[in-house]
Amino acid sequence: MEFKKEFTAGIIIIGNEILSGRTVDKNTSFIATWLNEKGISVEEVRVIPDKEQIIIDTVNEFRSKFAYIFTTGGIGPTHDDITSESISKVFNQKYQYHKEAYKLLEDYYKNQDFNEGRKKMAKMPENAKLIPNPKTFAAGFYVENVFVLPGVPNILQVMVPYLDKIIKNGKKILSISIDSGLRESVLADRLSEIQNKYKNIDIGSYPYFKDKPGTVLVLRSVDEIQIKKCETEVKKLIQIYK
Amino acid sequence: MEFKKEFTAGIIIIGNEILSGRTVDKNTSFIATWLNEKGISVEEVRVIPDKEQIIIDTVNEFRSKFAYIFTTGGIGPTHDDITSESISKVFNQKYQYHKEAYKLLEDYYKNQDFNEGRKKMAKMPENAKLIPNPKTFAAGFYVENVFVLPGVPNILQVMVPYLDKIIKNGKKILSISIDSGLRESVLADRLSEIQNKYKNIDIGSYPYFKDKPGTVLVLRSVDEIQIKKCETEVKKLIQIYK
Repeated sequence: MEFKKEFTAGIIIIGNEILSGRTVDKNTSFIATWLNEKGISVEEVRVIPDKEQIIIDTVNEFRSKFAYIFTTGGIGPTHDDITSESISKVFNQKYQYHKEAYKLLEDYYKNQDFNEGRKKMAKMPENAKLIPNPKTFAAGFYVENVFVLPGVPNILQVMVPYLDKIIKNGKKILSISIDSGLRESVLADRLSEIQNKYKNIDIGSYPYFKDKPGTVLVLRSVDEIQIKKCETEVKKLIQIYK
Repeated sequence: MEFKKEFTAGIIIIGNEILSGRTVDKNTSFIATWLNEKGISVEEVRVIPDKEQIIIDTVNEFRSKFAYIFTTGGIGPTHDDITSESISKVFNQKYQYHKEAYKLLEDYYKNQDFNEGRKKMAKMPENAKLIPNPKTFAAGFYVENVFVLPGVPNILQVMVPYLDKIIKNGKKILSISIDSGLRESVLADRLSEIQNKYKNIDIGSYPYFKDKPGTVLVLRSVDEIQIKKCETEVKKLIQIYK
């Protein structure tokens, strides 16, 4: 499947904790699943460290390739949170307190010390538009087509739905999973023939080796009629070897 | 922390199943944790689709930047497994049956149909050296500094240890995790001062929001004495707010 640029996205995971192996990235899976529903295809994911020049270069490269760019991580109160300032530099915008974001945090911390770290979470590129955070009130933001989200999965997950109306929908990407119960190598030759026949369907083949080896076949397409036809053929193929 | 190029690595995750959100990538975490023990720093991870030109370009770019390149995925028997052929093109080597890899598979499948898909798993760049696979006998391989591994985590994990002797060790990257039990924003200002004092230590700050919000602070360094000193200061800081 090939997507027009307007229906493509790239995800940039900013964070040493993924690169060090300490944390498994769950944000890609969440964002990608949500985008697929909207007909947007994630074409590339990069995990990069908290380094300003790398953040700037990666965002710029992604902007030249994809319609939507999502970043996760690096918008908290600590010294290693440099995403917002880096994004300001991408757009040549001042990095300053966002009035509304500041007010939200001020209210939230009213009985506590509203210290520098907490204030920092309201600093954004000057033309940033907020992405609400109903959980901890430190907002995310977007500038043009770059959407800046936090790294903590359960916060990111309550913020992403606010973007539903901002991102233009494409044709929903349909996905059918079929657990063949057969080894991948049994199916390979004939599956290849089916793939050649259905150019608009991506047929993925994902082996597993648990108690018994098997393979999940995943059909993906925006074409409802073709994917159904393809499903029928794949199921027939499985019956031959069952 | 800055690492000399000779102690750096990049990981390329090849697979539409990660980009579609269907699967959470666990291989990065496994490979990165293992490399950290060996003193090798993972500087970048990319998730890319099963497309030949993208695989070739990404491997070439990574080879110019990092000492070790690991790829996962795309070496199975099906039509969407194009990694081995793409790597052959990176090195301008013939893509052909590897004698030993072929023999291993032939023995393994001796009572079953040794079909085209199964044979395909023995096709590699002509100068590939094998990475043994004691689980399903479809070997991985490496050419120069590019290590080609499967995408299935429990197979990858039994293969990686075979590379222990091939990859040159750096100084082990030490890591100390401290669960502060405090919100990140309480610690931010003073933590920044500690980071400024210890330039050789990466201090990461990872908030969580479960039953109660808290923050794990992670110190990383190759310097055993400094990391201990830094740990003491961080623990003192936490005590102030406890």
